[in-house]
Amino acid sequence: MRERILAAATRHFAAGGYHGSSLARIAADCGLSQPGLLHHFPSKRRLLEELLAERDRRDVRAVGGWSEPGGAGVLDFTRRLVAHNAGQPDVVRAFAVLSGEAVGTDHPARDYFVERYRTGVAALAAGLRRGVAAGELRADLDCAAVAAEVLAVMDGMQTQWLLAPDRFDMAAAFAAYTDRLRAAITAPDPAEG
Amino acid sequence: MRERILAAATRHFAAGGYHGSSLARIAADCGLSQPGLLHHFPSKRRLLEELLAERDRRDVRAVGGWSEPGGAGVLDFTRRLVAHNAGQPDVVRAFAVLSGEAVGTDHPARDYFVERYRTGVAALAAGLRRGVAAGELRADLDCAAVAAEVLAVMDGMQTQWLLAPDRFDMAAAFAAYTDRLRAAITAPDPAEG
Repeated sequence: MRERILAAATRHFAAGGYHGSSLARIAADCGLSQPGLLHHFPSKRRLLEELLAERDRRDVRAVGGWSEPGGAGVLDFTRRLVAHNAGQPDVVRAFAVLSGEAVGTDHPARDYFVERYRTGVAALAAGLRRGVAAGELRADLDCAAVAAEVLAVMDGMQTQWLLAPDRFDMAAAFAAYTDRLRAAITAPDPAEG
Repeated sequence: MRERILAAATRHFAAGGYHGSSLARIAADCGLSQPGLLHHFPSKRRLLEELLAERDRRDVRAVGGWSEPGGAGVLDFTRRLVAHNAGQPDVVRAFAVLSGEAVGTDHPARDYFVERYRTGVAALAAGLRRGVAAGELRADLDCAAVAAEVLAVMDGMQTQWLLAPDRFDMAAAFAAYTDRLRAAITAPDPAEG
């Protein structure tokens, strides 16, 4: 039943966001009364928090964690993540609506998303720095700036895909972007000067 | 009074989005009754539409339109737009929350944002193509892909900035990105082979 409630909440948040969803309607979708739902998740806020945490756990199971690869391997990791996302539009849509709402000043997931970007940029930058230290990536690379850029492209392309999935191939566009980026940040071959 | 209602709506949408805002509270903020507000804007949906259209008109007055510059000049235009946005966080926040909600399946501004990305990418790609035709930009440039990437970076960096304005300098980060991009897409100097 917990799974069923999370799936229903994902559908409702993907339609109207947190602000536009009602616990009573999510409960009804699961054949539950509102008190019945509150037995599993004690508040709308807790349901939101569990839904976000559950998606993070599933992503790690599907594609691994941020901090594993070093050097340009971090770009392969982000590609796998984007390709994985391209196959689960409903989950991604719910998450995108919630993160969009959360840049507002009045949202229970604001701190979650602040922390998520902080740790995401930090892990990606650390992976790039390992590539610089190994001589694989350019010595003058601004790793924090590139990390912020890569996350920005993931998010921004996701928006374009969610608004026009038939017109914009997110996985292909992101792969092309990381190809261009990899060429730009790879250290020049010493043999070529 | 119209200005005052739009300013109040911007504050409310920046906090709780469209779904989380109420016409009655926006009216109260302006010292109006709800029927008093409906005299100026006949529905919450019309108020939203007018707010989006008004922001577009102001942006064009402040930084010009998408289609004016050609070649790498389109990147200067996007930089001016981002620098302008960095100075109006409340307006940008309202817009970001609304566009985040609008990737949901149930939002009155969904078509507006679909069309906005379509025309934005098309105008930016057309500007890049003029630069290719003039020999300023690389002949093999995938202009549509780069245009989608630039809009994605603008959006994604905006999210990071709105979540942590003291930690992330959006205008500087976007300027650094366009510097890197410009170097990558500029046609090689024939004198250097």
